[in-house]
Amino acid sequence: MLPLSVLEKAAAEMCDAHGTGQSVMEMSHRSKAYMPIIEKTEALLRELMGIPANYKVLFLQGGASLQFACVPLNLAGVAPGEPLKTAVYADTGVWSDKAVKEALKYVDVKVVASSKDKAYTYIPEMPPVDADAAYCHITLNNTIVGTKWAKLPETGAVPLVTDASSCILSEPLDVSKFGVIYAGAQKNLGPAGVTIVIIREDLIGRAPPQTPIMLNYATHAKEGSLYNTPPTYAIYMVGLVLEWLKELGGVEAIAKINREKAALVYDFLDSSKTFVSPVNKADRSLMNIPFVYRDVPSDKKADLEARFVKEAAAQGMVNLAGHRLVGGMRASIYNAMPIEGVKALVAFMQKFEEGL
Amino acid sequence: MLPLSVLEKAAAEMCDAHGTGQSVMEMSHRSKAYMPIIEKTEALLRELMGIPANYKVLFLQGGASLQFACVPLNLAGVAPGEPLKTAVYADTGVWSDKAVKEALKYVDVKVVASSKDKAYTYIPEMPPVDADAAYCHITLNNTIVGTKWAKLPETGAVPLVTDASSCILSEPLDVSKFGVIYAGAQKNLGPAGVTIVIIREDLIGRAPPQTPIMLNYATHAKEGSLYNTPPTYAIYMVGLVLEWLKELGGVEAIAKINREKAALVYDFLDSSKTFVSPVNKADRSLMNIPFVYRDVPSDKKADLEARFVKEAAAQGMVNLAGHRLVGGMRASIYNAMPIEGVKALVAFMQKFEEGL
Repeated sequence: MLPLSVLEKAAAEMCDAHGTGQSVMEMSHRSKAYMPIIEKTEALLRELMGIPANYKVLFLQGGASLQFACVPLNLAGVAPGEPLKTAVYADTGVWSDKAVKEALKYVDVKVVASSKDKAYTYIPEMPPVDADAAYCHITLNNTIVGTKWAKLPETGAVPLVTDASSCILSEPLDVSKFGVIYAGAQKNLGPAGVTIVIIREDLIGRAPPQTPIMLNYATHAKEGSLYNTPPTYAIYMVGLVLEWLKELGGVEAIAKINREKAALVYDFLDSSKTFVSPVNKADRSLMNIPFVYRDVPSDKKADLEARFVKEAAAQGMVNLAGHRLVGGMRASIYNAMPIEGVKALVAFMQKFEEGL
Repeated sequence: MLPLSVLEKAAAEMCDAHGTGQSVMEMSHRSKAYMPIIEKTEALLRELMGIPANYKVLFLQGGASLQFACVPLNLAGVAPGEPLKTAVYADTGVWSDKAVKEALKYVDVKVVASSKDKAYTYIPEMPPVDADAAYCHITLNNTIVGTKWAKLPETGAVPLVTDASSCILSEPLDVSKFGVIYAGAQKNLGPAGVTIVIIREDLIGRAPPQTPIMLNYATHAKEGSLYNTPPTYAIYMVGLVLEWLKELGGVEAIAKINREKAALVYDFLDSSKTFVSPVNKADRSLMNIPFVYRDVPSDKKADLEARFVKEAAAQGMVNLAGHRLVGGMRASIYNAMPIEGVKALVAFMQKFEEGL
């Protein structure tokens, strides 16, 4: 979901952006017309997230799935034949697991914390991190199971790396606690097709020589994300979303709204006779709220879930099925979802419950 | 440049595409709303290019620069410690050279043909290709120097691989002659941010295990380019451009226009007292036409070039400076440039020449 005002602005500027007579899609990435767009987008992100000066912001492609390889290659890659370095991972769901599987190609992965024993419905305790580890990786918000790291693990001098795809800019985040933050844009930042990497400068330049040049953070840091043609239009859209967020009052303001939105749903679930949140209260996501039927015979579960999703869709509330890997139902309430949409959802759930 | 009608359609559909109440940018990539878009885009590309059934079409990210690594990894990658395979490259300019440099990380590269001796102003003869080579790579159209492979090299059973970023869909191409065709979209296909790979199926599945999962063609072939979130909006835009091209009459029709457009410029250059094309006649690009002053003292060259570019810009003809690596001037006349634009350029050049 994107703010309607952002889409309207994009539509208005489609054929002639800023009086240039060109669409942003037609601009050469190193042109005088385009450079202010990428520069403004970076400046807004730095301002809104309070990114310290010793961090680089990179606009890349390939989503978190490509970062799953970039992180180990850049932070712990070794030349062929050299002994592998160690990296520490927390396993909090499907996306963490994918990150682990990709990292295993390049580093000695130690999964030191996992919530797999309870279907990932909580955030595990992170044990003290071995000072020799090249980095410690966590998935900040887990979209499928609806958990988030409310308290960041202490990793000492070991760089903390996080996949923030599904919660970036949803509430304040102390960037200085991280070595690398990466995020696909398509949840809170803009359209699919651009991936943001925020990286502490001293971690750049460590990739071994056989790393593909496009996967080496140094390539993009040196060239201001213009080594080759970046996803120019997606970056422009991120800029429009960041402008919208700034006008709204910034991250503190959206966090207040996000907490209100989430509270509406969680309060309903916690008092509902019909539905329940499977997630440990302290670890609940502000962005993704999975829920299930409290007590139903297992043979009626699928039918009842399908009925809920179908009736909600008839009311214009789409995408309420749980992730295909876990089933159940899920409300994803990213930044662009207005509180009215959440109120309508809760009202529908109440009505649905009464009608059962 | 994109066709105005395409931009106007994109603007009209920005807030509500096909009556879904959503922007294409907001659609989930596996949703019922989005799937027809990517399927239609692929079907149109197959139809327009005559892509045989035993080829897969992949919608990827990262541009040709990422393909420079993907091609050797997928077609000739070996596990660590195994002896390298051999691949054959032709060196026809900056982009070929970048492809070679990246491939050197993964394969034993043999550059068997080069036009570097004459500043890349011609296409070299390709010697018979060693049957043991994993593939043979050419850059089909060279944007900076303005050459193209008018006649494809015969490579026997060795797969021919090409970077077609700057000439795809500009004239008919016999896809069955190739193992892999790849192209960044931003010249003839749509906006930056999506890369098309057309690959013969038997070449998929050869990447060694340490290949990043996102760089393995098998990942995307198996999942219909939906392994992770693809650049959904850029793919939609490619679909709109392909619709426009089909309405225009397809590749044969655009090729006729492209040949007319190019002939206008080359005919002028070949009879001009002031300007000249440095490129061997048989090897001239239809898309990129570099030109230089015929006879000027070297100390006046830069001033005169700057004057041409500046006066052209004042007439609304932008981007006429040669590539920063070679200087001179260059007209890039991709598919979306109408013949009227080329006529205006030639008229301006004539007037400029008379005024000297």
